[in-house]
Amino acid sequence: MTTTKYDVRRGAYYDSVVLMQLQRGLIDLPGVLDAGVVMATPANCELLAANQLLPDSVITNPDDLLVVIKAEDDSSASDAMSQIDSLLAKRRSSASQDFRPRSLSGAVKQLPEANWVLVSVPGRYAASVAREALELGKHVFLYSDNVSLEDEIRLKQIAREKGLLVMGPDCGTAIINGVGLGFANHVRRGPIGLVGASGTGLQAVTTQIHNLGGGISHAIGTGGRDLKSEVGAITARQALDLLRRDPETKVIILISKPPSSDVATQLISSAQEVGKPVVVYFIGYPVPARKIGNIHFAISLNETAELAVKIGDQRPETVDKSPVSSLYIRGLFSGGTLAYETLLGLQASLIPIYSNAPITNYQLLKDPLHSEAHTIIDLGDEFFMVGRLHPMIDNDLRIRRMKQEAADPEVGCILFDVVLGEGSHLDPAGELVSAIKEIREQRIRELEFVAIVVGTDDDPQDLQSQISQLEDAAVKVFHTVTEAVEYVSLRFGTSRKNGFASINPELLRQPLAAINVGLESFYDSLTSQGAQAIQVDWRPPAGGNERLASLLAKMKK
Amino acid sequence: MTTTKYDVRRGAYYDSVVLMQLQRGLIDLPGVLDAGVVMATPANCELLAANQLLPDSVITNPDDLLVVIKAEDDSSASDAMSQIDSLLAKRRSSASQDFRPRSLSGAVKQLPEANWVLVSVPGRYAASVAREALELGKHVFLYSDNVSLEDEIRLKQIAREKGLLVMGPDCGTAIINGVGLGFANHVRRGPIGLVGASGTGLQAVTTQIHNLGGGISHAIGTGGRDLKSEVGAITARQALDLLRRDPETKVIILISKPPSSDVATQLISSAQEVGKPVVVYFIGYPVPARKIGNIHFAISLNETAELAVKIGDQRPETVDKSPVSSLYIRGLFSGGTLAYETLLGLQASLIPIYSNAPITNYQLLKDPLHSEAHTIIDLGDEFFMVGRLHPMIDNDLRIRRMKQEAADPEVGCILFDVVLGEGSHLDPAGELVSAIKEIREQRIRELEFVAIVVGTDDDPQDLQSQISQLEDAAVKVFHTVTEAVEYVSLRFGTSRKNGFASINPELLRQPLAAINVGLESFYDSLTSQGAQAIQVDWRPPAGGNERLASLLAKMKK
Repeated sequence: MTTTKYDVRRGAYYDSVVLMQLQRGLIDLPGVLDAGVVMATPANCELLAANQLLPDSVITNPDDLLVVIKAEDDSSASDAMSQIDSLLAKRRSSASQDFRPRSLSGAVKQLPEANWVLVSVPGRYAASVAREALELGKHVFLYSDNVSLEDEIRLKQIAREKGLLVMGPDCGTAIINGVGLGFANHVRRGPIGLVGASGTGLQAVTTQIHNLGGGISHAIGTGGRDLKSEVGAITARQALDLLRRDPETKVIILISKPPSSDVATQLISSAQEVGKPVVVYFIGYPVPARKIGNIHFAISLNETAELAVKIGDQRPETVDKSPVSSLYIRGLFSGGTLAYETLLGLQASLIPIYSNAPITNYQLLKDPLHSEAHTIIDLGDEFFMVGRLHPMIDNDLRIRRMKQEAADPEVGCILFDVVLGEGSHLDPAGELVSAIKEIREQRIRELEFVAIVVGTDDDPQDLQSQISQLEDAAVKVFHTVTEAVEYVSLRFGTSRKNGFASINPELLRQPLAAINVGLESFYDSLTSQGAQAIQVDWRPPAGGNERLASLLAKMKK
Repeated sequence: MTTTKYDVRRGAYYDSVVLMQLQRGLIDLPGVLDAGVVMATPANCELLAANQLLPDSVITNPDDLLVVIKAEDDSSASDAMSQIDSLLAKRRSSASQDFRPRSLSGAVKQLPEANWVLVSVPGRYAASVAREALELGKHVFLYSDNVSLEDEIRLKQIAREKGLLVMGPDCGTAIINGVGLGFANHVRRGPIGLVGASGTGLQAVTTQIHNLGGGISHAIGTGGRDLKSEVGAITARQALDLLRRDPETKVIILISKPPSSDVATQLISSAQEVGKPVVVYFIGYPVPARKIGNIHFAISLNETAELAVKIGDQRPETVDKSPVSSLYIRGLFSGGTLAYETLLGLQASLIPIYSNAPITNYQLLKDPLHSEAHTIIDLGDEFFMVGRLHPMIDNDLRIRRMKQEAADPEVGCILFDVVLGEGSHLDPAGELVSAIKEIREQRIRELEFVAIVVGTDDDPQDLQSQISQLEDAAVKVFHTVTEAVEYVSLRFGTSRKNGFASINPELLRQPLAAINVGLESFYDSLTSQGAQAIQVDWRPPAGGNERLASLLAKMKK
């Protein structure tokens, strides 16, 4: 008859390596069938239950340690129970360091050249350790998860003011100056620098680059929430700026889960300012184009690696630094799909952008008759179409709207399509060009016209003469949305300086030296990679007793 | 002093060509500065107002004709007003047809070989004309917009039962057997067939194919709403099936704005069954992969054309028809990004699919401890991580979950990642393989294991021995999510027969002959392309008087 026994240690702190070792130690004892050793959070209790290891009667708090033993018989279970303390005492002590400081400030005295602090203590303690590190002037690799969003924002704001970097929270991976932090692969050094809001993303791409024969300069993690609106990609933007100024880095990769759309635009604008080629992979975000200026968009981790290696092998691109306009563009389309694809392409660089046929609700133009900021209008939308010919046949509506847009002093560019073929107007360019000439005569300021012409040499309108008429009126003509989007994005893309205190790029040239607070395996990993490191013998305040800790904190104030 | 006069014709019907011609006629008269001729919908009245053409005092209904004249002086305005009737009488009569039937049934008697009816009457009349056409056994090209969704669904259901096609409503473009319907470009004949829920999309891609030297077999429009859940892509699926059976078509293109995700999966499954290569471009939908089996995913209209031409030039692919399993897959990941990218790739083919780290809310797994249908679990999610080592270090949680999934008879595949490098477990494959062997011994039915291994030859774990251990245990090993997604999609992708009455593929070989109801320019276009056509002298019931029309309709019942 199997039997199950349990033990609860109230408010006790052990690090997770110790808990794993205890569980394995218990399972190895004679007569023991299974064992569970967990911090008694609801999730962990459910997990025990799923493994038939949750005793019915037990009452626990999330900061209790719960040990459960299932054994063949009562005496085996009791024997195992009695060994918990001796197993706990057998702490792994692979860390060969003789003297361990008990505090971060003690560790800094011992290793003053440390430029990084690695934090992997439980989430509820992590923010205060990270803050202390920042106050000591150290960059932070914050592996811990279960850190609140508010804490993340506060830490990153402090770091930004001090010109320091906070990678994380929940940052699993980084490679700085050849040394892996957290989970990181051994990869060749080379010209590709990475910024990633995704730990395994960094691992997958850096390994793939290595396997393709390429190499990595640095890989900077940001933590998964860095690209939320509330955080505003502070770390990602610092990291882009840092890699921009790093002479070793020739190509930059930026990976993350889909960011908030305001943050996406900001990041793309930051990436444009980098000047170096940037491969962007926002996982699951629709790709605006294959390439806009120096930015290449990838659709998978694998393609991200392939693109970066390919670009790294090429001669550096000369980045076209055409003067950028801060005026708005207005798109007046007869073709709904052309309007939609244009919006899709421009939304990555032009903000805010509105439309009567929006992709997301917040892009909806309040009044389809009046444009705001950047606007893309589908004139073939049902709203305009009652008792009226399609704008591919009748240009009246579009010409009136063109004049309306041209009268707006904030408008710098009018973008439109000319769709030829059966059923369409027999000379659309002719009608539109005479309106454009009229506008040009009345307007003093420069106004650009850009056209996307869709047609073949067999179409009834004579493609070549349509294009010539447009070009003679100084209209910039493209044949695909893709080309027009790239042109307009580069001319009218939002330009923004981030205004952060710059991080000294020496950081990337100094030998990495680090103080580790938390998982000892990270200390082992640092020293095995030849980096200088020191392990702090960290204990939670008041031995993990929350009530006592909060009393102590109050007394300090 | 300029003056503005107006005239309201209550409940009068004129087609939009007539209205445009009247407006242009009025503007050309001496002393006239501007004119507006519109059906008095709120949108059109707003448009008049935007052009300073809306009289303050006017009260109209949406089915009234409102004529507004702005002139230099009172007498010019009055003169112009007096000419409205004679201008309206000057109907364009380019249609060279001698006798015009007044009804659809009359037209069918005159041109019994007509296989298509083109409908471009105002939206409120369009559904009943289309329905009559279906009842006469004709395929329908429904150009009209402002048709209700309910009418669309009813029409398509009738068509499906009869093995007929309804392109539209709001279908702008089609090319059948070399003849363009609606707005269509003159393009070379060739092996590429298109299905498009987007009119200008079809135009942009067909012209680009032509300009690249390729050619088109047929282009079938569906109307923009066909890919909504409510309509269920009836026309798109009929069209895919039709092109599948058309020997002239070697490559198929499917374009649309992003469909509902259930419809996307259905369509991808239909596209897989086609067997021929299919290039899919769901505008703005994140691309699951470059290629899954016979399906290629494009990211722009331009790339869609380029891909199709390239594939059309290649020798036909031999499509791998490996037996498809109807069992579920369960993904157990230590890497969050790998889980996310896998979900992103599989969501296009596997339905329903759930996750504790979903992309869209409806994918959220109710209980992270219990999988349902296809499920992707990120075991590094915060939920699992309190007081526990990361699953890259500690395999305990994953091994327990693997056993749990294996015990579910509906599971056919367990997919997992093995992430090597600094910080990770020193022999993850070893631990996982011994669990897999244990599972294999206990389970009678076939269970596939698929692993994504991320690592380099320099990693501490020895990449090669990790892979060998997995392969020796008959685990299928991939190095990228991309490869694993393609493999799993093809093995476990949802297979569905559409169960529609097939459309006779003769339709695509017969010379196109059509009855046109509505815009005369479409009739002109058909005859100029050498197609047989007949124009119906259509008038709205009761001359456009809605109240009378509804009385008449009641009397018919």
